Amino acid sequence: MPIIEPKTLKGFRDFGPKEQAARQKMFAQIQSVFERFGFLPLATPALEYKEILMGKYGEDEKLVYSFTDNGGREVALRYDLTVPLARYVAENQNQLTYPFKRYQIAPVWRADNPQKGRFREFYQCDVDTVGSAAPLADAEVIVCLCKTLEAVGVVNYRVLLNDRRNFNEIFGENATEVIRSIDKLDKLSWNGVENDLQAKGFGQDVIQKVNDYFVFATKKELPYRKQSEALKNLIVSGGVPIDSVQIDPSIARGLDYYSSTIFEIQLIDRFKMSIVGGGRYDNLLDKFSKTSLPAVGGSIGIDRLFEAAQSLSLIRANSSTRVLLLNLGEQYESEYLSIATKLRSAGLNTEVFYQPAKLDKQFKYAESKGATLAVIWGEKEKQAGKAQVKNLATREQKTVSANNLVEFIKNRLADEKK
Amino acid sequence: MPIIEPKTLKGFRDFGPKEQAARQKMFAQIQSVFERFGFLPLATPALEYKEILMGKYGEDEKLVYSFTDNGGREVALRYDLTVPLARYVAENQNQLTYPFKRYQIAPVWRADNPQKGRFREFYQCDVDTVGSAAPLADAEVIVCLCKTLEAVGVVNYRVLLNDRRNFNEIFGENATEVIRSIDKLDKLSWNGVENDLQAKGFGQDVIQKVNDYFVFATKKELPYRKQSEALKNLIVSGGVPIDSVQIDPSIARGLDYYSSTIFEIQLIDRFKMSIVGGGRYDNLLDKFSKTSLPAVGGSIGIDRLFEAAQSLSLIRANSSTRVLLLNLGEQYESEYLSIATKLRSAGLNTEVFYQPAKLDKQFKYAESKGATLAVIWGEKEKQAGKAQVKNLATREQKTVSANNLVEFIKNRLADEKK
Repeated sequence: MPIIEPKTLKGFRDFGPKEQAARQKMFAQIQSVFERFGFLPLATPALEYKEILMGKYGEDEKLVYSFTDNGGREVALRYDLTVPLARYVAENQNQLTYPFKRYQIAPVWRADNPQKGRFREFYQCDVDTVGSAAPLADAEVIVCLCKTLEAVGVVNYRVLLNDRRNFNEIFGENATEVIRSIDKLDKLSWNGVENDLQAKGFGQDVIQKVNDYFVFATKKELPYRKQSEALKNLIVSGGVPIDSVQIDPSIARGLDYYSSTIFEIQLIDRFKMSIVGGGRYDNLLDKFSKTSLPAVGGSIGIDRLFEAAQSLSLIRANSSTRVLLLNLGEQYESEYLSIATKLRSAGLNTEVFYQPAKLDKQFKYAESKGATLAVIWGEKEKQAGKAQVKNLATREQKTVSANNLVEFIKNRLADEKK
Repeated sequence: MPIIEPKTLKGFRDFGPKEQAARQKMFAQIQSVFERFGFLPLATPALEYKEILMGKYGEDEKLVYSFTDNGGREVALRYDLTVPLARYVAENQNQLTYPFKRYQIAPVWRADNPQKGRFREFYQCDVDTVGSAAPLADAEVIVCLCKTLEAVGVVNYRVLLNDRRNFNEIFGENATEVIRSIDKLDKLSWNGVENDLQAKGFGQDVIQKVNDYFVFATKKELPYRKQSEALKNLIVSGGVPIDSVQIDPSIARGLDYYSSTIFEIQLIDRFKMSIVGGGRYDNLLDKFSKTSLPAVGGSIGIDRLFEAAQSLSLIRANSSTRVLLLNLGEQYESEYLSIATKLRSAGLNTEVFYQPAKLDKQFKYAESKGATLAVIWGEKEKQAGKAQVKNLATREQKTVSANNLVEFIKNRLADEKK
């Protein structure tokens, strides 16, 4: 049979054991903060009816992965976690208690052009509150996201606030297109935004108005500055340093569905990049239900956060093997298993080498799994009733009575941790 | 704009907050046991090249979700976690240390006919060892799976062992089809299997031989009984009760790729169902690589395990809110936020009600989130410098000095846990 070349699709990734262990640790830290704020997990399917997703994402709608399934249904892979949330709430509207506070950490798919840091499959990590129009709901979403960054060790961040209504009031019917162009400011610079507006057919009057917007904004003449200031105060009450929260008129957010508060959180210092984005979307639920439900939420760019935390060496997975029982012969294997059972019951990650092999090879394996101790139990040890325990870092070797072996290893590894 | 009916696709599910919190807790328990045995996590993409998945699943191959992507590539949603593992190992063959021990807990997709307990999207939970042909590798996979069941509280299980080589030796070139038919035994009963074989065009000779197989087997004349007995002994050394391990000739496993050891773990008592399945597949890697790599693994049916654990009330999520700060007016909101920040820093899941509302409504919300305490802080309390703390279960209410509030709540909730 011909061999099939083993390869992943462009824009898709595997996460190998060490990286994935660290990612899972980060996910667990994040979940713990979300739950601290009263957000609970929701899981929705990877596939949705295509019509659920259409008409929500503006010009990026073309990036939705869609196909016809075997039953002739038009289906699509989820593009984000917000629209599935809206669908879920509308579908279960009468069973939920409001405000409905949920988080979801899950992959999404976008048929985008893959490039450095941009993938076709990536994780999103969202917190949202549905059913409250209160500014406190906006504040708590933002504070929760800040505390999440802090929990994984990222403390140098800046919250940038704006309000969609500023654009609507100033640009009227042109607001949607102007927002989409301004949203590209950090990628394109001001000239690029100007060209983008021209390409869309806007005249010099609109371009001048956009220019003026930034001047007005700097002069503190934003129509909704008061609301943003009040939100800022609440965020600061929630324990975010006052110098870390700014009102920034250039924050536009590309997605169509935002209705008032919009925000980004950027990392400062080495990583000048936006790592969190979100806002209030009071009308999205209307697409699925006659009952209006206001909502606010935010999303962490998990890949970027993971990269930042790794660069700062903040994430250490505790999943490595602590003890390897070396294999000195098949006749001892049931004894190895019985020792391993005891060590595992004591909470220690333990492995048995699966077949007799040269000790060099077995030590190399121990090293690759990050093990601290190796246990040697062969004929000599069995006759003496004493095992050898080797510290793989210091190469120090101790002789330990078989009866005392598990206790000895437990104490040794407890010392190691100190 | 017309309203789009909010609905999920047939065979797909949402998991609401309470259920998902419990599922996540179970996943965390499982991961912890897997890591105790030295298995580390791997994550592979949801989409693979279609040719990677084809020719591996026998007659169920028609259930693979596949489509042509925007770039004209034939792609498919993963059908299980084993073939992606084989692809990953072949793709990274020279970078890995062997034995390569990995686990993966992730959704898979099958365009199957949905019915009770059968879904088109469901989680698989796999442990596998690649690169060791040793019986100890088989034993450790099975022991690890047993200990996982025990960790979530399921202790009444039975490990059923068999060996694919029994079928190959007895049925020769007919083995594949005979195995597929015998695999349906629990669904179809013996008459059904007989009909299934007839429908495939087998004559009375083959049917008689299948009948004889079960008679031989009962007479202990299985060609590979010795190997199964040795494996059983290792499993028992690993701490699985001897009465919980049986050799069972009727275990066939439907998938084509198994090569020797095959096993299932069934729940006994109330849930007579197979909850874990797996085996050794020494030739699967050959499809992607010229270097042969033996492998063994098993898979937990997470939905069934979750259902069993729930029926036994074994899983309790600790994600519920402990304290709700009632909202008695916007003028106190920054104080609520500041108290909440302190309680959260002390590790307590805490919520602030987002806007002033009737106390009834706020208490109802507290109840829906499972909160233990409610804090009342309004004009009267502010002037007296004393908050009211209400135990939502006992309705008991205490007056607590504002300075002492956080400490009081911490102690109260610590008492609750005892």
